[in-house]
Amino acid sequence: VDKKDAKVLRLALLGYGNVGRAFTALAGEKDAELQARYGLRLVFTGVLRRGGGWRHPAGVAPADLQASGWTASRLPAGATAFAGDGADFAAQCPADVLIELTTLEPLTGEPATSHVRAALAAGRHVVTANKGPIAHAYRALRALAAEHGVALRFESTVLDGLPIFNLAEFTLPATRITGLRGPLNSTSNFVLDRMRMGWSQERAIVEARALGIAEANPAYDLDGWDAAVKATVLANVLLDTDLRPQDVAREGLGAEAMQPALAALPEGYALKQMVEVERDASGAVRATVALRALPPGDPLAHLSGMETGILLHTDTMGNVTLLEGEGGPGQTAFGVLADVIAIARAHGVRSDR
Amino acid sequence: VDKKDAKVLRLALLGYGNVGRAFTALAGEKDAELQARYGLRLVFTGVLRRGGGWRHPAGVAPADLQASGWTASRLPAGATAFAGDGADFAAQCPADVLIELTTLEPLTGEPATSHVRAALAAGRHVVTANKGPIAHAYRALRALAAEHGVALRFESTVLDGLPIFNLAEFTLPATRITGLRGPLNSTSNFVLDRMRMGWSQERAIVEARALGIAEANPAYDLDGWDAAVKATVLANVLLDTDLRPQDVAREGLGAEAMQPALAALPEGYALKQMVEVERDASGAVRATVALRALPPGDPLAHLSGMETGILLHTDTMGNVTLLEGEGGPGQTAFGVLADVIAIARAHGVRSDR
Repeated sequence: VDKKDAKVLRLALLGYGNVGRAFTALAGEKDAELQARYGLRLVFTGVLRRGGGWRHPAGVAPADLQASGWTASRLPAGATAFAGDGADFAAQCPADVLIELTTLEPLTGEPATSHVRAALAAGRHVVTANKGPIAHAYRALRALAAEHGVALRFESTVLDGLPIFNLAEFTLPATRITGLRGPLNSTSNFVLDRMRMGWSQERAIVEARALGIAEANPAYDLDGWDAAVKATVLANVLLDTDLRPQDVAREGLGAEAMQPALAALPEGYALKQMVEVERDASGAVRATVALRALPPGDPLAHLSGMETGILLHTDTMGNVTLLEGEGGPGQTAFGVLADVIAIARAHGVRSDR
Repeated sequence: VDKKDAKVLRLALLGYGNVGRAFTALAGEKDAELQARYGLRLVFTGVLRRGGGWRHPAGVAPADLQASGWTASRLPAGATAFAGDGADFAAQCPADVLIELTTLEPLTGEPATSHVRAALAAGRHVVTANKGPIAHAYRALRALAAEHGVALRFESTVLDGLPIFNLAEFTLPATRITGLRGPLNSTSNFVLDRMRMGWSQERAIVEARALGIAEANPAYDLDGWDAAVKATVLANVLLDTDLRPQDVAREGLGAEAMQPALAALPEGYALKQMVEVERDASGAVRATVALRALPPGDPLAHLSGMETGILLHTDTMGNVTLLEGEGGPGQTAFGVLADVIAIARAHGVRSDR
């Protein structure tokens, strides 16, 4: 595909932390491959982060964005500074796709939900790696996207970029997912692993923080709130329900529950903080976060370190399990790119700017 | 979606054994769901099996096909008998999609390859669950499909219907698969499991036959030929190469190799007959079938019974592993249905017959 024949998709980034930087780097690495394989060229028409932002209606190529060494005081060539807030940016950025990468506010999902709403209402496709909008407002946002004929995609909201939503949508058609489970909180499972190896809980938590997987306050992870938000996202999308994080049962969790549960663990079993979602006989969907003893034959029992995964119960294929060998900003960035390419495939892209 | 507004996709089945019957049953179970979710209606315009076949240009609904209790002497209402061979049927059946389900001839891939070629040349999409055409003629058939603007899909050729090819195509875009491995021969891995439990090899083979997973002659499985055909399919498609089954290295296999390998197995390890495919530094793709000792942290080490799976090495996501909890004709039939739906989504379907 000749460069001038490639379709151009204009992207705007709202939030520019580890994932945003990994995404622009990946877009640069894959630039030639995207043009060759998909006839697709990505350009950045705006970025907003804490401390400032810019717009560039013609768009900056990924390599030029990286080379620009953008700071608040030095914009990419041809860009103009943007002074508004996130919702203004989402509504006004000259982009086909808004990519929402702001920091999660788990209890409300804001301001990310407002950003997503503003972009959809302006007729832009949205890709978000932020769990908040999907945990707190999925049905309303889905309806808004449908009303405006645009896509709302969110592969990277759980399990980094492991293609769980795309697996369900594109490879398990005509399938009902009747339940799922997975060890989705890295901090809890890292701490349990290390305690099993004989470490103190305190040392394991310090190490998890040093590795960048735990927040300063580990209670959000150990008490099951992180997993409850993820359970909500998975339940709402894959089992078509309308839960909120506070609807998720959190059973026997917390720092104090770990040592007794480990002491009671049968030989050969693994202890994990698990998300479980299932539809009961009445059709109601129930989501739970709890410490579970997994027998050695369980495909999720042997995950260690930063490995994670999910098991789906389906009516067509029985159990299907998808595992990730390693997670991080690079994997999350890939999930964003996969969503961008899915939009390009399904909705077409403008052939000029 | 109103029934009369649904798009109709006309299917013809070439081969009608366990998978064919499971597929027509699944199409019947999912009939209403396909119309509601995809606006898609499937009809059968022909079936050819050993002993006879029929054509029905208007098409028979899945439920009517099952209710017809079709035999060679009693055709579905409105059908006319078809007397030609498989290639004639593939060329002449009044169908949008030919579904190739004949029995594998592993050394040549015939007559399935001729069937697929005839259907593609006649402008029909093809879905095949038969490994032969993909192992022996993938590049030529892919080019023929492109020339005629039709699809060639083959999800069910390996790992039953576990969505490995659809995973790569739809959920891992812009990704290079640099290698893969999996315990893909059920008979060998069942026999190894049982021998580890103390059974004699002879008893394990008898049991595998009784369960319907082993052929009368187990050498095809134990000597690695079944796995070599699967390795070829995976390598040709996912690593874009052009191997034949005889190009696959089969190392230290056979019935006699199992007991010594089990005796040498380290504590806690699992012994599996593994397919391994990798691209070396020169860019050449090498495929191997061998008995391997898998350490306890390997996500493929704990599969038992009819569980199977595959691990992909990728440049974007690191390692991604997909596991199947149970395999059989129902799962294979699902893979065929997933391919049919992918064709309907990508290529549209005729709105009348």
